[in-house]
Amino acid sequence: MHSTMMQAPLSLNHLLERAGQLFSGNEIVSRLPDKSLRRHSFGQFYRRTRSLAAALAGLGLAKGDRVATLCWNHHAHLECYFGIPAAGGVMHTLNLRLAPDDIGWIAGNAQDRFLVIDDVLLPLYQQFAHLHRFEKVIVFPFSGAAVDSKYADYEALLAQADGQSFEYAPHHEDDPVAMCYTSGTTGKPKGVVYSHRSTILHTLVGSLSDFWGLRGTDVLMPVTPMFHANSWGIPYAAVMLGVKMVFPGPHLHPEDLLDLMSIEPPTVSLGVPTIWMSLIQAFEASQAADSPHHGRWTLPRGMRSLVGGAAVPESLIRAFDRHGIWLLQGWGMTETSPLCTISYPRAELRGASADERYRRAAMAGVPVPLVELRVRGDTGGDQPWDGSTVGEIQVRGPFITGSYYRVPVEEDKFTADGWLRTGDVASIDSLGFVKISDRTKDLIKSGGEWISSVDLENAIMSHPSVAEAAVIAIPDEKWSERPLACVVLKPGAQASAEDFRAHLLAHGFAKWQLPERFEFIDAVPRTSTGKFWKLKLRERFPK
Amino acid sequence: MHSTMMQAPLSLNHLLERAGQLFSGNEIVSRLPDKSLRRHSFGQFYRRTRSLAAALAGLGLAKGDRVATLCWNHHAHLECYFGIPAAGGVMHTLNLRLAPDDIGWIAGNAQDRFLVIDDVLLPLYQQFAHLHRFEKVIVFPFSGAAVDSKYADYEALLAQADGQSFEYAPHHEDDPVAMCYTSGTTGKPKGVVYSHRSTILHTLVGSLSDFWGLRGTDVLMPVTPMFHANSWGIPYAAVMLGVKMVFPGPHLHPEDLLDLMSIEPPTVSLGVPTIWMSLIQAFEASQAADSPHHGRWTLPRGMRSLVGGAAVPESLIRAFDRHGIWLLQGWGMTETSPLCTISYPRAELRGASADERYRRAAMAGVPVPLVELRVRGDTGGDQPWDGSTVGEIQVRGPFITGSYYRVPVEEDKFTADGWLRTGDVASIDSLGFVKISDRTKDLIKSGGEWISSVDLENAIMSHPSVAEAAVIAIPDEKWSERPLACVVLKPGAQASAEDFRAHLLAHGFAKWQLPERFEFIDAVPRTSTGKFWKLKLRERFPK
Repeated sequence: MHSTMMQAPLSLNHLLERAGQLFSGNEIVSRLPDKSLRRHSFGQFYRRTRSLAAALAGLGLAKGDRVATLCWNHHAHLECYFGIPAAGGVMHTLNLRLAPDDIGWIAGNAQDRFLVIDDVLLPLYQQFAHLHRFEKVIVFPFSGAAVDSKYADYEALLAQADGQSFEYAPHHEDDPVAMCYTSGTTGKPKGVVYSHRSTILHTLVGSLSDFWGLRGTDVLMPVTPMFHANSWGIPYAAVMLGVKMVFPGPHLHPEDLLDLMSIEPPTVSLGVPTIWMSLIQAFEASQAADSPHHGRWTLPRGMRSLVGGAAVPESLIRAFDRHGIWLLQGWGMTETSPLCTISYPRAELRGASADERYRRAAMAGVPVPLVELRVRGDTGGDQPWDGSTVGEIQVRGPFITGSYYRVPVEEDKFTADGWLRTGDVASIDSLGFVKISDRTKDLIKSGGEWISSVDLENAIMSHPSVAEAAVIAIPDEKWSERPLACVVLKPGAQASAEDFRAHLLAHGFAKWQLPERFEFIDAVPRTSTGKFWKLKLRERFPK
Repeated sequence: MHSTMMQAPLSLNHLLERAGQLFSGNEIVSRLPDKSLRRHSFGQFYRRTRSLAAALAGLGLAKGDRVATLCWNHHAHLECYFGIPAAGGVMHTLNLRLAPDDIGWIAGNAQDRFLVIDDVLLPLYQQFAHLHRFEKVIVFPFSGAAVDSKYADYEALLAQADGQSFEYAPHHEDDPVAMCYTSGTTGKPKGVVYSHRSTILHTLVGSLSDFWGLRGTDVLMPVTPMFHANSWGIPYAAVMLGVKMVFPGPHLHPEDLLDLMSIEPPTVSLGVPTIWMSLIQAFEASQAADSPHHGRWTLPRGMRSLVGGAAVPESLIRAFDRHGIWLLQGWGMTETSPLCTISYPRAELRGASADERYRRAAMAGVPVPLVELRVRGDTGGDQPWDGSTVGEIQVRGPFITGSYYRVPVEEDKFTADGWLRTGDVASIDSLGFVKISDRTKDLIKSGGEWISSVDLENAIMSHPSVAEAAVIAIPDEKWSERPLACVVLKPGAQASAEDFRAHLLAHGFAKWQLPERFEFIDAVPRTSTGKFWKLKLRERFPK
């Protein structure tokens, strides 16, 4: 017996057509380099995106060709999200926070044919232009200045193209639409290629009520860069559901974000912990009667905010909750589209105390639908879901990568039975809440026992004198490895190694788990995505 | 270039595993024939469902074999939803409201191998048993009585099966999981076969925040029968998200539903207009100080309720809204899984008046993601989305049927370019709201102009003396067709054809649109799904 259902491929083009038909009156707002706001209807977005697709087809873009973007978050970047795939191309978002040499290497590795770039980012382009020759550099006049004639002008291309009679490039649902390189904290960046199918499925799952919970009446502010795993995929969802978007452009300083949130209050926002931390600190400082910013800002009470990219401290969740904003922590990777787990309120916790709710919110959360997740021990078996036994997280599903672009399948990234090895170490409890304890590469093996660097860091960071702290392993002749703590003190604060050891003992650590060495440093090095870059610390403290 | 995403088939088994892993503590409540409640955990559901699958495999169920169900809404029926596909079978829900001969014909047409039946429905089975021989009749002891030894006992089968070591039947995502026959208002019922893929996609789309908006903390009461297009697909969603379910069993009388809603207040419910109408009338009557039920019931304020299966009158939406319950109207068919459109609050209507909001809520709504919808005129072209030009609705998408089981593709149900012809006549406005004006077969063509039977019916039903009314076409020598109105008066009420014609003129109808004939009848015949059965009226009034 066969199903009688239609064979209808999943397609981003469907979302675009939907937006043009149903939501043409809703709004897309972008903050320009001069901080003014550009307002834009979904109808304009629809017509401009089809014009972009027609223009790219006219430039000879062939099926599967890569078009790189080097852009902030704004309406034209959104047009690339849909216009490049509509023409059969693959949008490759370049990360403007990487070193220029790395950007050039990545563009070369991806064999990008064209580049769409914000005019304000041309100085960055010039630093890596010698590493990869794009056939065409298309400049988006984000600042409003005229585009140099040696480049193609994005607006002129759109104006000349015939979007109305454009026909979508035929495609299968497994055909690629976008690619993104991993941040490469532990080696060369590697390309992950998303398909129509994986993107639609991820969009549907992320939009569910317990997660982004997107509604047509929402106002969405994606602060997470559109070059980090497609801003976690939420621009696709906003187009599917006709959600008003407010893009911050290049203005990501806390004061700028607070200004924008006060002018265009979002009901949903996405960000990383470091930015959210400085944002709430700036807001709370402005509440002091003698602050120069007193009364300048309103925080949008009731806003749902998804925070990820790095572990979200419980203190941050409590701080936002004081202002009526609940942070939802998510965990994932470029390889996973990225949403894998999210910490959301569960029916089973209805009677739980506030402390218990905060504790859960500070965990990585529960696997989302279509993602299978398991925790594997050293010997390869599944660990029990007891909330304490740790192992490596492995994931599988239709929006999880099964390989990397132009990289032979590496044994250490995929298991023999086809699961992705995430390199994150975690336990899972009986409700399915994942608690990340470390990266496999950061675990400290001392005398045959594991010590979690993340647990030590969190405990050290709860000391009142500490701004931030990172713990790494150093080789040890007797114990194989021992922990070393790198501590950044708050301005003017003082504390000794002895103080910290006493603090850790009081927090329940065993004596053998305590670091012998505490190094005082100016700042913890971070990757372009805001994560602690322990590779750099290991280079600095090799023993 | 190829996408690097994993090939991972969509599968109902994933939802079942998910429910067992993550939600084992949440609850499933079923009302038994004696009106007591049976409580059941998701953990039990998971283990029992796997036992059912193991039992079916043990009985020799082969890939693609049909297992019929003849059941009310309860936990064991839910087990069939997942257990039959887990064993590789296809769940075929039989409609217990059909005439016994029709049920027998349908079981024969579907070539059902096994039957799972509620013990309380055995008398119905005995009326059609001679029409189709099931290899095995498995009786669910819903009433608690012992099962006659000539049948297999559902509970005994589960108790003997080894669910723990059961292994899911391998499958592709396009493999079938369930089938349902159309209600057959205009001919023989026809089988629609759903797949893993279509079911998962429909589940994700329906669960979105603007539609069912299901959350893990919800309490769901599906009053819509599980044999009507799988209770509109919501049981799959509730399992995916771990939502507590409250099943009404066989007790669908307004007083029973109000009792259940008072004991186990739902936050989400699904029903058809006829039942919802009698429910709100019973509730409002109970508010009178002299009512025997005064103070007996509480309506769950804030409950979201999806209503469909037939047009939802604006008066019903207003009535529920007075009690803090907003009805979401949906439109679809067995052929469409069924969700095609839903009327939900749109950003563009934020400033709209209450009247405008009610008017929109009484429309069929806006197409959901993954459903493409167009309105075709007589000459085959797309009609403009102007809110007034009508044509036939045609739909396409991955959860829309592309054929019928064992029926050659009929030209009149599918267009040459692969769209399903729904047979519903509608207009669409600029915001994408669909307004159904008629069935193609019920439209009245008079003197070359169309008259909408639905518009006439609604206007007649707004007359204070009228309980219900249906309008059909009768042949006319001069005008080709003319409308004839069949009217059911309220008990004790009186009104004449002249009164109705004056009422219709006052409602803006043109003179030539008014029916010449008004026939007073006792009741409008209805199909098993609660729709006006105009075929029967046309037989009664052939001219």
